[in-house]
Amino acid sequence: MPATRKLDVVVDSVKRLLRVGATANLLNLLQKQHPADLAQLLSALQERERHAAFSILIERNGRLAMEALSELGPETGASLLADRSADEIARFVQELPSDDAAALIDHLPEELSSAVLELMRRKDSETVENLLEYPEQTAGRIMNPKVFALSEELTVGEAITEIQSSRDVEMVFYVYAVDARRHLVGVVSLRRLLLVAPETPLKRIMTTDLISVRVDTDQEEVARQVASYNLLAIPVVDEENKLVGVITVDDVIDVIKDEATEDIYRLAGVSGDERVFTPPFESLRLRFPWLAINLVTAFLAAAVVGLFEGTIAKVTALAVFMPIVAGMGGNAATQTLTVIVRGIALGELTWANARKALLKEVTVGLGNGVTIGVLAAGTAWLVRGDPMIGLLLAAALLINLCVAATAGILVPLGLRALKVDPALGSSVFITTLTDMAGFASFLGLATIFLRYLQRG
Amino acid sequence: MPATRKLDVVVDSVKRLLRVGATANLLNLLQKQHPADLAQLLSALQERERHAAFSILIERNGRLAMEALSELGPETGASLLADRSADEIARFVQELPSDDAAALIDHLPEELSSAVLELMRRKDSETVENLLEYPEQTAGRIMNPKVFALSEELTVGEAITEIQSSRDVEMVFYVYAVDARRHLVGVVSLRRLLLVAPETPLKRIMTTDLISVRVDTDQEEVARQVASYNLLAIPVVDEENKLVGVITVDDVIDVIKDEATEDIYRLAGVSGDERVFTPPFESLRLRFPWLAINLVTAFLAAAVVGLFEGTIAKVTALAVFMPIVAGMGGNAATQTLTVIVRGIALGELTWANARKALLKEVTVGLGNGVTIGVLAAGTAWLVRGDPMIGLLLAAALLINLCVAATAGILVPLGLRALKVDPALGSSVFITTLTDMAGFASFLGLATIFLRYLQRG
Repeated sequence: MPATRKLDVVVDSVKRLLRVGATANLLNLLQKQHPADLAQLLSALQERERHAAFSILIERNGRLAMEALSELGPETGASLLADRSADEIARFVQELPSDDAAALIDHLPEELSSAVLELMRRKDSETVENLLEYPEQTAGRIMNPKVFALSEELTVGEAITEIQSSRDVEMVFYVYAVDARRHLVGVVSLRRLLLVAPETPLKRIMTTDLISVRVDTDQEEVARQVASYNLLAIPVVDEENKLVGVITVDDVIDVIKDEATEDIYRLAGVSGDERVFTPPFESLRLRFPWLAINLVTAFLAAAVVGLFEGTIAKVTALAVFMPIVAGMGGNAATQTLTVIVRGIALGELTWANARKALLKEVTVGLGNGVTIGVLAAGTAWLVRGDPMIGLLLAAALLINLCVAATAGILVPLGLRALKVDPALGSSVFITTLTDMAGFASFLGLATIFLRYLQRG
Repeated sequence: MPATRKLDVVVDSVKRLLRVGATANLLNLLQKQHPADLAQLLSALQERERHAAFSILIERNGRLAMEALSELGPETGASLLADRSADEIARFVQELPSDDAAALIDHLPEELSSAVLELMRRKDSETVENLLEYPEQTAGRIMNPKVFALSEELTVGEAITEIQSSRDVEMVFYVYAVDARRHLVGVVSLRRLLLVAPETPLKRIMTTDLISVRVDTDQEEVARQVASYNLLAIPVVDEENKLVGVITVDDVIDVIKDEATEDIYRLAGVSGDERVFTPPFESLRLRFPWLAINLVTAFLAAAVVGLFEGTIAKVTALAVFMPIVAGMGGNAATQTLTVIVRGIALGELTWANARKALLKEVTVGLGNGVTIGVLAAGTAWLVRGDPMIGLLLAAALLINLCVAATAGILVPLGLRALKVDPALGSSVFITTLTDMAGFASFLGLATIFLRYLQRG
């Protein structure tokens, strides 16, 4: 049975049990689920149902409820807890690893989050508060401060005993070795520990040439390193190279997904904070600025058309075809832009090889300009019975597709040189450019060759 | 020193050493690099330099060269090997895990790849050939068939001895237990083995409720499971539940990146096979069909304008503002579409909650329609001194932004119901719709209220 089909069945049962108020049965069903499935299940419910099911679960199995909640992401998680007292939240949150706890508390309403931190202070909330001090999207924010580290002076046998007695340390597969002042000095894989005699000193078998990141490293860079060196976890050190935490590959996967979402969103002018069920007013607030910027640029493009109103008044057919030139330029530019932005994100495109990429894109632009131009010219001629307007259309398309190719590569590279995310501003720049170039080339050529065109 | 800066320095050195022909120094420098860094380095070089550096390295350190090559991805990797003899390739390829070897051979020119397989047949090419028999983008294609499995009848002590004597099994952290006929029956983590007495039977400590995928499972589904259950590896079974391979989290990360790239590309009408340095003619071939489809739809939109040529002839100012209505609709629709497509990809949006999402989007559309409409109307009035054309613009914008919101959600959901990837066709459908609706509403209203407009 495919996974989604199975989920649908469980969702239906949960809805039914909620409706008839069969709490015991419902609890039974919920407790059988894996936290990840439970999270999927909760997000498939209506908001009221979600709150009801979650309340029933958390009263009886706080740990499972909180594990599911942390899979849901901090926004949804915080909204499910927001109507509880600070006391309860402080208690529940302790079931979570401190990085997840920090993210969750950060998304609670202001007063509630400080009350929760106040209550937790007596216990281990110091780690949570410390995590919250690191800037968002850095290694410090996503690391787990409970890192398994051993003195480099131990033997393999002693290390194995330590591992056996350790609790609550999630997913140990690398053992980090530190010196007396907790400086990170080496790493040993769990498998390697099994391969040598118990009396071997850790020092002798550990790898000292190890890869680590600093607390202030950007999470995207952390993800890049974990992915390119095929690591299962990466140690996090402070500015003195002291070991302060660890980031595991499952957190890296979340970062990679979030960054991909951010790139996709930015190309379309959507904020990275938005999700399908962000409240409408919030979405409006997030999307409006982008549309407002686009409105300004649309008026710029309209101003270009305005320059040629006299020509349009004489040959209204021009008004019919001018959106084609602008639109095709926009489409071609978006293709180039997307390949380039993704190439930058994946590290394939640098300044060093930019010239080669430019040459390629202009070649493609010329090629597409000629083929699309000929097709468009033929169609226009057929439709209007005027070969001249077809010729104009072809020439304008050729010009605009070359503009599109050039802008599609230079704009993102330029923004990157200015340290602006190329995904963020490129598409508005580029469509403005192709609109203006499209209108200017088509209507400009029409003005020059006006006497060859059929009036009307 | 940031990673990219360091890379630039090494790239410069490599270029210099190549230029002066200092092969020994170059080899020395290359051999010091991690395979992942080496891959980055090679891709930053010009094509001729890349071939030269790679040739020098592979002659002396075949293993490192091939590791770097497998990081480069099969396309680039195959191109670096394509000028070698089948004999050499067969020898080099044996340095790779069989999933990477299969992908690489699959990207060689037809005759070369069959010659290589022929040569390898005598040895272990059977596994490679078997992998090539699974359809692309399935678990079978990306799994590693060398999976570490033990009989469920062993004790923990015997299992540890087996692990100690195993070679070449990359990254063991889970031990899979099988019965006498190699059916997958359980899993034990390496850490758990350390925690119990050596005489304990595996059977007693293994988890029997384990997550696996079938060889024909789509790689996207594999990635979803590994990510949501936070696994480091997932076992692959055949239709009889016999263990045939394992997929590790590093391969899953590659899948997640590739799928994100595919989604980003498809939204922009670019083929998933394209990269920054795909040869121009190939890019042209890949991008042309999309532009051709867009040309057809652009003519459809132009036809709508054509219906109102008479109106434009009377009020040419309409030609100036009409692209604004169409363009803003396109922008708003792209925002909605992006959130929806990503929501579908991440599993947040289903049919069950689609109505709620539609309601939200239409609310946002109305809100943006009113605000953007008022802004545009004010500007148009200011620019043209004609309040009526501003009113028309506002009304048309309001209509078109609501069309954009509705289409932005219904089109991707509809495509998904038809089992078409919503990222693939949505954007062309939607921009056509918003172009046509934009032109029709603005010019249509203008025709109705023609007598209130200033002629000219």
